[in-house]
Amino acid sequence: MKKYHEEHQLLRDSLRQFIEKEITPNLQQWEDQEECPKHLFKKMGELGFIGANFPEEVGGSGMDFLASEIVMAELSYANIGGFTGSYYAHTFLPLPLLNAMGTDEQKDKYLRPAIQGDMIASLAITEPGAGSDVKGISTFGEDAGDHFILNGSKIFITNANIGDFMVVVTRTGEGHKMTLLIVENHWEGVSCSPIDKKLGWHTSDTAQVFFDNVKVPKENVIGEINKGFYYLMNNIQEERLLMSVMATHTAQYAYDEAVKYVRDRKAFGSTLSKLQVMRHKIAKMATQLESCHAMTDRALLAFMDIGPKATEVITMSKVYTAETAMEIINQAIQAHGGNGYVETYGVARAWRDTRLFSIGAGSSEIMYEIISKFEID
Amino acid sequence: MKKYHEEHQLLRDSLRQFIEKEITPNLQQWEDQEECPKHLFKKMGELGFIGANFPEEVGGSGMDFLASEIVMAELSYANIGGFTGSYYAHTFLPLPLLNAMGTDEQKDKYLRPAIQGDMIASLAITEPGAGSDVKGISTFGEDAGDHFILNGSKIFITNANIGDFMVVVTRTGEGHKMTLLIVENHWEGVSCSPIDKKLGWHTSDTAQVFFDNVKVPKENVIGEINKGFYYLMNNIQEERLLMSVMATHTAQYAYDEAVKYVRDRKAFGSTLSKLQVMRHKIAKMATQLESCHAMTDRALLAFMDIGPKATEVITMSKVYTAETAMEIINQAIQAHGGNGYVETYGVARAWRDTRLFSIGAGSSEIMYEIISKFEID
Amino acid sequence: MKKYHEEHQLLRDSLRQFIEKEITPNLQQWEDQEECPKHLFKKMGELGFIGANFPEEVGGSGMDFLASEIVMAELSYANIGGFTGSYYAHTFLPLPLLNAMGTDEQKDKYLRPAIQGDMIASLAITEPGAGSDVKGISTFGEDAGDHFILNGSKIFITNANIGDFMVVVTRTGEGHKMTLLIVENHWEGVSCSPIDKKLGWHTSDTAQVFFDNVKVPKENVIGEINKGFYYLMNNIQEERLLMSVMATHTAQYAYDEAVKYVRDRKAFGSTLSKLQVMRHKIAKMATQLESCHAMTDRALLAFMDIGPKATEVITMSKVYTAETAMEIINQAIQAHGGNGYVETYGVARAWRDTRLFSIGAGSSEIMYEIISKFEID
Amino acid sequence: MKKYHEEHQLLRDSLRQFIEKEITPNLQQWEDQEECPKHLFKKMGELGFIGANFPEEVGGSGMDFLASEIVMAELSYANIGGFTGSYYAHTFLPLPLLNAMGTDEQKDKYLRPAIQGDMIASLAITEPGAGSDVKGISTFGEDAGDHFILNGSKIFITNANIGDFMVVVTRTGEGHKMTLLIVENHWEGVSCSPIDKKLGWHTSDTAQVFFDNVKVPKENVIGEINKGFYYLMNNIQEERLLMSVMATHTAQYAYDEAVKYVRDRKAFGSTLSKLQVMRHKIAKMATQLESCHAMTDRALLAFMDIGPKATEVITMSKVYTAETAMEIINQAIQAHGGNGYVETYGVARAWRDTRLFSIGAGSSEIMYEIISKFEID
Ligand SMILES: Cc1cc2nc3c(=O)[nH]c(=O)nc-3n(C[C@H](O)[C@H](O)[C@H](O)COP(=O)(O)OP(=O)(O)OC[C@H]3O[C@@H](n4cnc5c(N)ncnc54)[C@H](O)[C@@H]3O)c2cc1C
Ligand SMILES: Cc1cc2nc3c(=O)[nH]c(=O)nc-3n(C[C@H](O)[C@H](O)[C@H](O)COP(=O)(O)OP(=O)(O)OC[C@H]3O[C@@H](n4cnc5c(N)ncnc54)[C@H](O)[C@@H]3O)c2cc1C
Ligand SMILES: Cc1cc2nc3c(=O)[nH]c(=O)nc-3n(C[C@H](O)[C@H](O)[C@H](O)COP(=O)(O)OP(=O)(O)OC[C@H]3O[C@@H](n4cnc5c(N)ncnc54)[C@H](O)[C@@H]3O)c2cc1C
Ligand SMILES: Cc1cc2nc3c(=O)[nH]c(=O)nc-3n(C[C@H](O)[C@H](O)[C@H](O)COP(=O)(O)OP(=O)(O)OC[C@H]3O[C@@H](n4cnc5c(N)ncnc54)[C@H](O)[C@@H]3O)c2cc1C
Repeated sequence: MKKYHEEHQLLRDSLRQFIEKEITPNLQQWEDQEECPKHLFKKMGELGFIGANFPEEVGGSGMDFLASEIVMAELSYANIGGFTGSYYAHTFLPLPLLNAMGTDEQKDKYLRPAIQGDMIASLAITEPGAGSDVKGISTFGEDAGDHFILNGSKIFITNANIGDFMVVVTRTGEGHKMTLLIVENHWEGVSCSPIDKKLGWHTSDTAQVFFDNVKVPKENVIGEINKGFYYLMNNIQEERLLMSVMATHTAQYAYDEAVKYVRDRKAFGSTLSKLQVMRHKIAKMATQLESCHAMTDRALLAFMDIGPKATEVITMSKVYTAETAMEIINQAIQAHGGNGYVETYGVARAWRDTRLFSIGAGSSEIMYEIISKFEID
Repeated sequence: MKKYHEEHQLLRDSLRQFIEKEITPNLQQWEDQEECPKHLFKKMGELGFIGANFPEEVGGSGMDFLASEIVMAELSYANIGGFTGSYYAHTFLPLPLLNAMGTDEQKDKYLRPAIQGDMIASLAITEPGAGSDVKGISTFGEDAGDHFILNGSKIFITNANIGDFMVVVTRTGEGHKMTLLIVENHWEGVSCSPIDKKLGWHTSDTAQVFFDNVKVPKENVIGEINKGFYYLMNNIQEERLLMSVMATHTAQYAYDEAVKYVRDRKAFGSTLSKLQVMRHKIAKMATQLESCHAMTDRALLAFMDIGPKATEVITMSKVYTAETAMEIINQAIQAHGGNGYVETYGVARAWRDTRLFSIGAGSSEIMYEIISKFEID
Repeated sequence: MKKYHEEHQLLRDSLRQFIEKEITPNLQQWEDQEECPKHLFKKMGELGFIGANFPEEVGGSGMDFLASEIVMAELSYANIGGFTGSYYAHTFLPLPLLNAMGTDEQKDKYLRPAIQGDMIASLAITEPGAGSDVKGISTFGEDAGDHFILNGSKIFITNANIGDFMVVVTRTGEGHKMTLLIVENHWEGVSCSPIDKKLGWHTSDTAQVFFDNVKVPKENVIGEINKGFYYLMNNIQEERLLMSVMATHTAQYAYDEAVKYVRDRKAFGSTLSKLQVMRHKIAKMATQLESCHAMTDRALLAFMDIGPKATEVITMSKVYTAETAMEIINQAIQAHGGNGYVETYGVARAWRDTRLFSIGAGSSEIMYEIISKFEID
Repeated sequence: MKKYHEEHQLLRDSLRQFIEKEITPNLQQWEDQEECPKHLFKKMGELGFIGANFPEEVGGSGMDFLASEIVMAELSYANIGGFTGSYYAHTFLPLPLLNAMGTDEQKDKYLRPAIQGDMIASLAITEPGAGSDVKGISTFGEDAGDHFILNGSKIFITNANIGDFMVVVTRTGEGHKMTLLIVENHWEGVSCSPIDKKLGWHTSDTAQVFFDNVKVPKENVIGEINKGFYYLMNNIQEERLLMSVMATHTAQYAYDEAVKYVRDRKAFGSTLSKLQVMRHKIAKMATQLESCHAMTDRALLAFMDIGPKATEVITMSKVYTAETAMEIINQAIQAHGGNGYVETYGVARAWRDTRLFSIGAGSSEIMYEIISKFEID
């Protein structure tokens, strides 16, 4: 089982205080305005919530992966899926690539400020014509000697409207030949257009991004040219594992709300919690929730033990928790009756926000594609 | 099977034209503003869409129940769940009670204008402390000779903010002793407060209603005093059957969108519709959808044959289609990938709007309570 | 809805009497011995239960398809899945092919005695190397002038050990070129070996069949040479529709048993039927069962209306009822507790027997293949 | 995660050899004869497979609980559910009660020979009128000074026909006042009648047991008089946890068979394993299987850490794995097509045998009752 040490506990405590003070009181307002509370990045950077699991050399705290798990768990439990997604798309998508393969200059210029919350970052893979099929991307970087000329467009890019730089997955050859380029959002030829009306993740920022002859100096290539696809695949395990953490802890939130609700809600001369059907509903939800924790922890321990080689169990955990969390939250809504349909009760938001997890970071169908390769081929 | 005649086809055609011209072009805007397009009542009244299934004596067209089915099917297929709900909560909740039990004066004063769309009506049952448990209501009508003094509050009342009158289910004695009172919204002591942030039904109007010593003349009692509960139970079959129609036809909409999407969407060198897993997903959705139609039609024919005695099959159809429609629409979102998470694609709205059907007009659990009585006791 | 006439009712009544007298008292013994009560064919033939839906010219009663539905429904409800399967594999697999395409001589020699129960017949399609993939069969008929020389083997052939003749689907060319040959079981070169240990259908007879240079005279070709595949596809709708009837009525049996059981079974100071969770279990089963009836009737009416063109709804009904019946019966076992695990209670047998319906006559996956073609291509 | 040491590995290896040599070659024959291979107890006792997790003082090997887990896992994977159940009902039901609360004399007389496989034991709780409702038992022990006079009957008692003694749960007062009595099967007044026709567990022995004025000396009371119910509840955690192991490892067997089958089975010009729908079916089964392992291990580690206090997670693991294993095995049958319906392929037996796990040792509904108390009250 997971073993938390004192430093983990301290991290959790300080984050909980932060959430209680800075997030929870304003959450409903941000949700209503469908606005990403961008200013939180700075505060979270200062308090070490972005850098917890990054090395001290780049401004992090050098904690182990449990630190990342804790931060994602606590934010998810706060039921602010959108901002949690923005934080996640910053901290765990582009930054680990920079950390793993970036040059010292790149780290100084981009990673360090991003860890401090002074810069906000995105990872731009998806295109209007290529989502699951990453090899289908067509955003092209033409080699022009000391720089690339970048053309194309990206879609669904979290943090791009509010961000400072993005790591752009760029075709630089046929097939798997892709290169990761650091592109600053204010550069000439870069433009963003917000995707406003989303089903959930209302407090995240999502953009369509256009590159029109953008000049990207070669010092902004991460790692080697044409190797981007492989860097991406390596990093994606961490991303999927943390999505499993998100799904599980949002479900935990909804579950806890449901238990509280049925204990209090009067009906038929008693409370809902005395009705056997409601009791079994809760018991089944609790069992499913436990299975989400069991899968996530199993994947987590495997990842901490053997790293990205834990691919299969992480993939399983990702698809399993994404689907199961929805079932739990759906029943949490049901237990609330009409109030489950009112946004101020929180479970509706949890449901909308969690729906993304079967689509993003590799859809459920893509997860099964991967698992079937492990199992059959 | 259902047999539509020419008048049915004419009704359907004219409604489709109306939807295409008046609703579809404005729908996204109304949704974004979370506003009920109140003015549509007038137009729909004029065109006979409210009165189709009401007798000619009260201004209706005297068509059979298939007319109601057609209107609900077409509106639902237009994927404007909120307004469809408002129309439904007006046309099929309070009006049939007035039609069945109202005096000639009541019909002239309230029913006729409501059928013409000149008045908007609500049915107010649910209270903050009593939803599924209708017998738990405490809004009280004190008998004061020629009038009642009404005190209490109602919650989740569709159309109450925008409406003109409501049929208020009022306790006038112990146990089942309830009375249906027609209350005009502008009367002294009546106040409404909007419930703004709902998970779905954004283009419907929902209110909390307060009664503070409201004077209701006895000529505004529908039917007999203390018999309200029974009138309600009688009418509710029609209401549940039409919710089954709503669920089925919203699912049909989402299904059709999904088929179109996967046929067009390019991926992995072809279209999504060539992937076997996607094909079977569609096939399974189609099968589930067919089962929704089969159940709804079965309930419909039984209702047209034997009326409210068809309670059990209607109850089954209601719970079955509400739950199954959600599974279909959920997969329709999945088939859209990231675009399923974008509100402009329609399936997300269908999903949010349809979620209500397992809660409203008797939750799924209440349906099973009823069915179990038929089957076991 | 289905309209039964007096002759239907008479058929049902006489069959019920037959079941009560001839089948039910011996059923458990036949099951225990895993033996097909072959002698029943003769009796059922005499009483007109085989010929009900065949024309009078060939010895049938000339009733409509509802007669077939009634016979399958009643036998299925008697919960003797194996023999019901044998009866079905005789009456609805080979005989309709003979009836539709057979010559007068063939009808006299084979169909008429089969309808009278004097001969028992099989349809032999499946081979060890080709099940779902019918085009993959390799049993070959070499044209030798006035006869074919038949070589190959078939598997899972119902009634072949106990039978008199079979209609053998034989490759007589490439691709779809197959021919239907009537082969008598006692002919030289034909041998059968029983498949004894089946999960269910214990009172059916199942065989592996080998053809070793079997001489089949050309007068035993049904219809035209090389057209067999198409005759087969045409007939298969009836077969699938009746499997839907079997699934639904076996589920009805198990459901009725469960209701009786929970009403009687004492527990916790009352009966199981007073426990809310058990009540909702029953209510959910009843709802699912209703949906099976709704789907089957829908397919039935479509078939009676437009014949094999009703393919899609029949395919949907087949896959839907096969899967849903299993869920119902599974819960019927659960409601019986430990007694559900004892074969004498009947629900265990219903469960084992019904498991076949997602595999036989086209597996669920093959059904979805077919539906997806209708929906997408 | 579980940490196996060398002694665990040795145990596993020797058990695997035993299974391969003594069980697998004869399994099908025993299954066909529906006979419990009683002689295996002696051999397993000698080889230390019964005593692995019992203390050396009573003839065991003094290994930790992982030894029990290993034995149950390996036997379950051998897919001989019936005998595995007999072994389990001997080793983990009555013996731990004797071990925990028995006197030295009782241990010498009963426990030691049972561990050596010289005596076969049962635990007799269930009665015709009381299963889930343990407090409803009526088998009564009348205090007659130095002995009890035992009257009543038990049902579904594993090993009673073939066994030597049983621990009988006996009412000796009102409410929870029950006493555990050791009763020898050959004593006067004890009679057994086999329950032959079970859905599964064919190689287990199951009996109805009758007590007719059986004289049970007080030295055969386990622990204190009237405390039996509590001893039972304490021991039942181990029993449920090991049922979770059984469910998981039988599912693992069926899963492995399915993967082998689809890799080999030719269809449509390739193998089943190349069909995307089949691949995702396998991937989903693998994911569910992983979740069974994750839940079982989680419960196992908690049990090894805190003992019977791990009740809730064990209860969750029991219900979860029992239900999920059935889904996996059901799909394993489906993947086998017609061969899944033939008993020699093994998956059918796995399915029949596993069906018990939602009923025995506390049904799924009873599990939810327990969980709901933890979660709500
Ligand atoms: C709110 C939000 C935030 C996002 N943030 C980012 C971000 O920061 N950066 C970024 O790069 N992207 C981001 N994405 C994009 C996301 O990663 C993609 O939406 C996702 O990968 C799916 O791709 P798609 O939308 O193109 O769907 P498609 O690939 O078109 O898939 C549509 C459907 O087809 C199915 N499908 C696809 N292939 C197969 C197959 N082989 N077999 C069976 N079924 C298949 C899918 O499972 C899905 O059900 C975000 C998306 C959303 C909605
Ligand atoms: C958008 C919207 C519009 C509405 N419009 C109207 C309207 O116009 N007029 C009106 O009068 N009302 C309206 N309602 C209210 C609606 O009818 C109620 O929400 C519904 O009846 C459920 O009642 P409740 O919310 O009090 O839930 P509760 O009754 O508190 O139920 C909470 C949960 O407990 C379950 N439960 C309740 N009783 C049992 C039981 N005996 N056994 C097992 N489980 C049980 C329920 O199924 C549910 O899951 C509307 C609601 C919404 C959300
Ligand atoms: C008791 C019994 C009685 C029978 N009686 C007869 C009879 O009288 N006459 C007769 O001719 N046959 C009979 N059959 C055979 C039956 O029709 C076949 O078993 C059935 O068609 C499946 O074929 P298969 O067993 O070869 O399975 P396979 O075709 O090998 O299928 C194995 C699995 O692969 C799946 N699969 C196959 N193709 C695809 C695909 N394209 N995409 C996705 N998944 C796929 C299947 O759905 C199944 O899950 C009987 C079978 C049984 C068990
Ligand atoms: C093969 C086999 C071996 C067995 N071996 C043994 C053995 O060695 N020793 C022994 O003592 N027993 C044994 N049993 C008995 C087994 O433990 C019981 O069958 C089991 O506890 C269920 O009890 P029951 O059969 O009386 O079912 P019931 O208690 O009658 O239950 C019937 C149904 O009602 C449900 N139900 C019960 N109570 C509730 C509730 N409060 N709320 C909701 N639903 C409820 C149950 O979940 C079940 O679905 C064995 C049984 C079998 C089949």
